[in-house]
Formats: sequence, structure tokens, C-alpha cells
Amino acid sequence: MLETIIITNALILLDSGQTLSSGFITLANGLIDRIGPMAELGEYPPEVQIIDGRDHLVMPGLVNCHNHCPMTLFRGLADDLPLMIWLQEHIFPAEARMVSAEMVYHCTMLAAAEMIRSGTTTVADSYFFEERVAQALADAGMRAVAAQGVIDFPAPGVPDPSKNVATAATFIDQWQGHPLITPAVFCHSPYTCSAETLIQAKEMARDKQCRFFIHVAETEEEVQNSIELHGKTPLGYLDQLGVLDDRTICIHGVWFKEEDLKLMQKTGAAVVTCPESNMKLASGVAPLTEMIKAGIPVGLGTDGCASNNNLDLFGEMDMAAKLHKVISRDPTTMPAVNMVTMATSGGAGALGLPTGRLAPGRAADVIMLDLSAPHLSPRYDIPSLLTYSASGGDVSHVIINGRLVMADRKLLTIDLQETIKQVNLLAQTIRATL
Amino acid sequence: MLETIIITNALILLDSGQTLSSGFITLANGLIDRIGPMAELGEYPPEVQIIDGRDHLVMPGLVNCHNHCPMTLFRGLADDLPLMIWLQEHIFPAEARMVSAEMVYHCTMLAAAEMIRSGTTTVADSYFFEERVAQALADAGMRAVAAQGVIDFPAPGVPDPSKNVATAATFIDQWQGHPLITPAVFCHSPYTCSAETLIQAKEMARDKQCRFFIHVAETEEEVQNSIELHGKTPLGYLDQLGVLDDRTICIHGVWFKEEDLKLMQKTGAAVVTCPESNMKLASGVAPLTEMIKAGIPVGLGTDGCASNNNLDLFGEMDMAAKLHKVISRDPTTMPAVNMVTMATSGGAGALGLPTGRLAPGRAADVIMLDLSAPHLSPRYDIPSLLTYSASGGDVSHVIINGRLVMADRKLLTIDLQETIKQVNLLAQTIRATL
Repeated sequence: MLETIIITNALILLDSGQTLSSGFITLANGLIDRIGPMAELGEYPPEVQIIDGRDHLVMPGLVNCHNHCPMTLFRGLADDLPLMIWLQEHIFPAEARMVSAEMVYHCTMLAAAEMIRSGTTTVADSYFFEERVAQALADAGMRAVAAQGVIDFPAPGVPDPSKNVATAATFIDQWQGHPLITPAVFCHSPYTCSAETLIQAKEMARDKQCRFFIHVAETEEEVQNSIELHGKTPLGYLDQLGVLDDRTICIHGVWFKEEDLKLMQKTGAAVVTCPESNMKLASGVAPLTEMIKAGIPVGLGTDGCASNNNLDLFGEMDMAAKLHKVISRDPTTMPAVNMVTMATSGGAGALGLPTGRLAPGRAADVIMLDLSAPHLSPRYDIPSLLTYSASGGDVSHVIINGRLVMADRKLLTIDLQETIKQVNLLAQTIRATL
Repeated sequence: MLETIIITNALILLDSGQTLSSGFITLANGLIDRIGPMAELGEYPPEVQIIDGRDHLVMPGLVNCHNHCPMTLFRGLADDLPLMIWLQEHIFPAEARMVSAEMVYHCTMLAAAEMIRSGTTTVADSYFFEERVAQALADAGMRAVAAQGVIDFPAPGVPDPSKNVATAATFIDQWQGHPLITPAVFCHSPYTCSAETLIQAKEMARDKQCRFFIHVAETEEEVQNSIELHGKTPLGYLDQLGVLDDRTICIHGVWFKEEDLKLMQKTGAAVVTCPESNMKLASGVAPLTEMIKAGIPVGLGTDGCASNNNLDLFGEMDMAAKLHKVISRDPTTMPAVNMVTMATSGGAGALGLPTGRLAPGRAADVIMLDLSAPHLSPRYDIPSLLTYSASGGDVSHVIINGRLVMADRKLLTIDLQETIKQVNLLAQTIRATL
């Protein structure tokens, strides 16, 4: 049995978006058990761990629906460059030289440290050497969907592309049933995987009831190329191949057209929007309002550290809300409560995980924010405070699957100094070649 | 004589944008004295205060060129609303009911706490009861340009609009020569001040060699109305009245046309861009790249808390850089080093203050960032790290005018608990009427 925790005297963000002041929440067996006003707490056994929630907000842990965790190594390596120069002259060569099982483990651990410290309890990762990503996230005590990369080129850990789908299948078999890690497959894109690979990978994923991730319509050029080559948008092409269903997760969708939104609706596929990455690379602005209006499941993602360059989902919520307001010239677009939903239960829904909500029976993935900071007063509206005023640095405690992994900003599952040391050693190798 | 401080063993962001590792910086008499590698520090008297800068970055304090400090009281009071409903049904009524000398003092103190904790050492404020703003900022130990509001309606502290310019003149006389506070005048806008008021206020400011702030071209509607009414853009109208010169600071300039940029060039007026506020209110995107290309002095501002809703300039740098990249569809736009310059020496230049640079003889306005956080490794490029990865929460120490005002995130000049208590008491009054 996992440890039992009770948070007392806290301001609690309820499922409705409303708040309960001076409330309690009990966690047992990795699940949320009870939530209520302090008067109803009653007696509890002496061995229970009590966390004093005075002057703290309790809310669901955030769900980051798209990351390439090991890319923390490339944070700030090459910025403010045209996409193709960034990718082909900086990121790809650095990856070719640096990505190894060991690098993936340490750099994912750094990502986990950053995510936990900024209130993210669940991440969907897509990379190579995914078993090392999964191991690092499991060791850090994070909940994750870990998707092994598939691409029709020699890739880190998969030198022979003809084995890419088989490698992913093996990875999935090894991790299925893990209490924290849900394995999946990540086909890099419709333009770097052949039709055969895409079909095989999706069949394998269907067979194993796994999620299938793919970058789609990130740039305008990608859409133009697809139309020239296939007579269809990238999403239309994926639909033709039969890879879209309610376990398919399309990353970016920046250049989705109206016909694409209809395909998303029809097939039940989900989308992950990564506004900061799309802004920084100048890729464009996804039709987020239209996606939500169409009822498409939408999650929020940071993308990898090379194109963001941080993993703070609170900042992502703020930027997404403000970006879509100014683009639509409508300040009522993307209200704060929608952003909080997207970063919690919305993302959980897209990933198919029982997290992202404070409700009995849901996963005990809970974060606490210290409300004593000057920028968190006054408090007229909690979703507004979370979206526009708070940042990851306000998170004081993090509980994942009923286990306390950060207390008073101290990481309990990660040797942060050692992790930073290892990552900076790897960075030195890169720096020596700059 | 002001206390002498030496920061040792630090990574120092030099004026060139380059860094010096394991360096020292000495501060004396409110000024930066020497900067160099540790080997050159030499002996120093025993009464000097030493701050260990190991694992810390030392950089100039940030300069927030536009704020309405007392509006922290309205943080999150009304969000995600159309501009006119937000202003006329929420902000104006709340201001009419709540703004008093006492409110202005406490709510400015909350703003000061938030700004110091996020690395801002200088702020340009524009509001009413400005003597209370100035007093709070002086008590907090912040450097500021404090501009008394002028508007042709009954205003807080100025019930008789015919006395608005005289009130500002008295305020300026009272504060001129203060070591931290530079008084100025703030005409609200070309559409809320008559031509006579604008001319009088500018003449008074010229006479007293003070800065003259004004909101200009914030919304498209404002520009259309001005053209209908005056046959000129708002800036063209201000030029016609003769109020533009190198001590005029135009706030927003979202809808500046090419002819406006030429007027700015010709007159030497500066602009303050407030991207988060303009995004949140869906006002539009300022032609920032064009302004910079035209050589117009540009500062960065948060605007007031009611339309942002925080005062973290690190977040503002990040959002500004990413916004202009995606809007221009050019990822090379607004590189990180430009954003750091804008938030430091650029802003200082616009305000005419000797701060914003680490160089001997400049004001000793210095901040330190704790580099041990996971999101601040690796470090290939410091301006990139500051713009895209850091946040205000990473600031550990703040020195203003040679005085330590925050150490290890502990505020030394502000009773934060008491300030938050006072502001929340005021907020309760507002909440009771919601």
C-alpha cells in the first residue's frame, strides 16, 4: 500500500473550477480518497502524513502533453535562427554526436527535476532510447506516456531503420503494466516515415492498445509539400493511410485547415498545441479556438527544451491565452479557466490517463502553490491567478501517484546536484566544438 | 557614504553581452566601482560587505518602463473581457471607489515587493496620488521615474481637472533632487486630455526638465477616431501640438504607422512597448522590429497589473521575443541579446537614468540570479538563458543604488506580510461588491 497523506487547511481548486477554502484532501493507495471542508475531516490513524496547507492552493498536477525530455541538453544551444539552419546545422549534428543511452537518462532526469519543480506531474515524451527516458521518469517518480521514436533514417539507438517499429514494439512490451509509465509509439512525421512504416507502427500500436504520436502540420511548407506529393494535407494523408483514431495524438497542427478539423472530429484524434515552440521557431499559430469549438481533445505541451527553452507549463498557459487573444483580436478568447482545464484534465483526457482532476478515485497527482508571494495577492479568481500571475516557481509541494516527490521546493526523488553535474559535463563536450 | 559591497566569484554579464566567469564587482557610494577577474580584486577594508557570487550570475537590474503600480489591487479582478467592458464596467468603477492616498501607498508597496523579487530595480510609474507612489518606492529603496497623472476628468486626488497640471507641477517640485525618485508628468492620452492641457503639461515638463509620458495609439479605434477628429494619427496630432521631443515617452504605439515612426525619429521621442498587456487586451502587436530599425529608443514595460497580470520582466522579455518572431514569421527577429538590452540599458536610456549597465560609474543597480535551478543548465549563451529560460523567481539578491534590498530572496526593505495584509483588506471591500 502506498503511503497515506492528508493535506489540511488548504484552498482547494475543485473540479468545477470553484474553490473550497480551509479544506482537506486525503490520498490513499495512489488515489484521491476524500475532499471536503476541515469540519468534516474526522479522525485519522496516527501514521498518516499530514501536510499543512495553510496559505497554499491545492490543485491537480499539470499534464505536459509533448516533450522531448533528453533535449534539455540542447537548451539555448542555438536560438533565433531560421528553422532549417537551427535543425540541420545545430540540433541534428548535436544529436548525432551526443545522443546515447547515458545522455538520455541524465538529460531526462534534468527535465524531470524542472518539470516537478514547476508543477508538472505527467509528461508525454517522444524520443529515442525511450527505455532510458522511461527509466529516468520512473526513478523520478513521474507519471508519463513514453513514446519510442520511429523514423526512416538511422536514429539514436536504432541504427537500422528497418527495425524501427520492432524496436518500439519491444519497448512497449517491456513497459506495459508499469504503475507510472505508459508506453507508446512516436512516428516522427508523415514526411520522415514512409507510408508502410506509418501503417505498421499504427497497427502495432492498435494491437497493443497504445497511443500513437506524430508531428503533423507544424510548418506551412510541410503542408504545401504534402499537397504537392500526395494531393492531400498531412492529416488527410494520414487519414488515407488509416492511422487516425481516438488513440492518435497529433502534435502541433499549426497549419490545420477546416477539412483537417473535420477529420479530427470524425476520427476522434487528439491534438497537442505547443504555442511557445511554434512562436520561437516562427512556425505559426494553431487554430486553437476552432479546434476547441469543434470538440477536438486538446492538450498543452512545451515541446523539447531546444525550442522553448523551458518546461514551465504555467508560462505556457499564460502565453497561449495571450497569443490567441491578440491573434483573434478578441480578449474573450481562451479565458483563464479554459487554459487551466487544458493543462490538467484536458491533457489527461488526450493521453487517456486518470489524472488531471481533484476528485475521489482519480490518481493522487496533486500540487501545492505557496500563496504568500506578492504576485499571488489579491485573489479574486483562481484560474486567472494560475494563468496570468503564477509561475512554476510558486509550486511548493508535488505528490505523484500518492508519493511526495517535492516538499518545500526540495526534490525528494532526484539528486539534483549530481544530475546538473552530469548534464553540464555533456554540455562541455558540445561547447568544445562550438 | 553608502555602504560598500563586493560580489565575489560570480559569473558577470558584461556590457558587451559577453560574460566574465569567476569575476568580482565592487560597489561604492551608490555606484559601480570596479569589475574584473578575481585575481585582480586585491585587498579591501574589513568593513566591506562581501556577497559570495559562486553559482550566481550578476547582471544589471531590469528597468520596467511602464507600470501603474497601485493597480496591483485590481490583479485578476476582471479578465478575458472586451476592452471597453473591462475598463468601463470593472476597472474605472473600482478605481473610483477604491483609489485613495492610503490604497496607493500599500498597493505600490506590493508592486515594489513583486518587482524587487523578480529583478526589477527601476520602474517608471504613471498614476494618481503619485506622491504616495513615490514615497512607497522610495521606502522600498527602488529607483523610479514617478509621473503624476493628468486627465481632463475628475481624478483620484485631483477632483478639479482645471488643477491637474498645477498638481503635477507641485509634485515635481517636491521630489526633484531625490536620490532615487525622478518626478515626471503623465498625460493619460491624446483623447482624454485637451490640446490646451497637453500643451500646458508639456511646457511645464520642459520648464522643469522632466519626462512627459503619454499613452499613444494603443488601439486601432483610437487611431481611427483621431484621424476622424483631427485629420491626423494620435502621434501626428501630438506633434502638431508640439509635445514631442527627446523627453517625451510614448507608451504602447501599437498602431504606429510609418509616418509615426518618422515623427519619432525626427523628434527623438522614445516608445515603451508592453506586449503582454497588448496581447491580453487583444489591442494588437506593435511594429517593434521597425521601431528598432528606425533607431527609436525602446523600453519594455509590464503595464499595470490589471492587464498583464504580473510584473515579471523576464516573462515580458520571453513573450516579446516569441510574439514578434511568430508575427513576422521570422525566427531571427528580436534575438535574445536585443531583449536583454531593451530590458536594461535600452529602458534606462529611454528614461534618461544612469542605470541598466554593469560599468564603472553607472548606478549600482545590480541583481544576482541563482544558477543552481534545473532550468538554468546547460548554459551555452547567457542572453538566451535570461530571455527564454529564466524567470523572476531565479533572482536571489537585489542591490539598488548600492543598497542591498533583497538577499537570498528575503526582502530587506519591505514588510511583506503587512503589505499583503493591507492589500487583501482593500480587496475584500472590492470582493464584497462583486
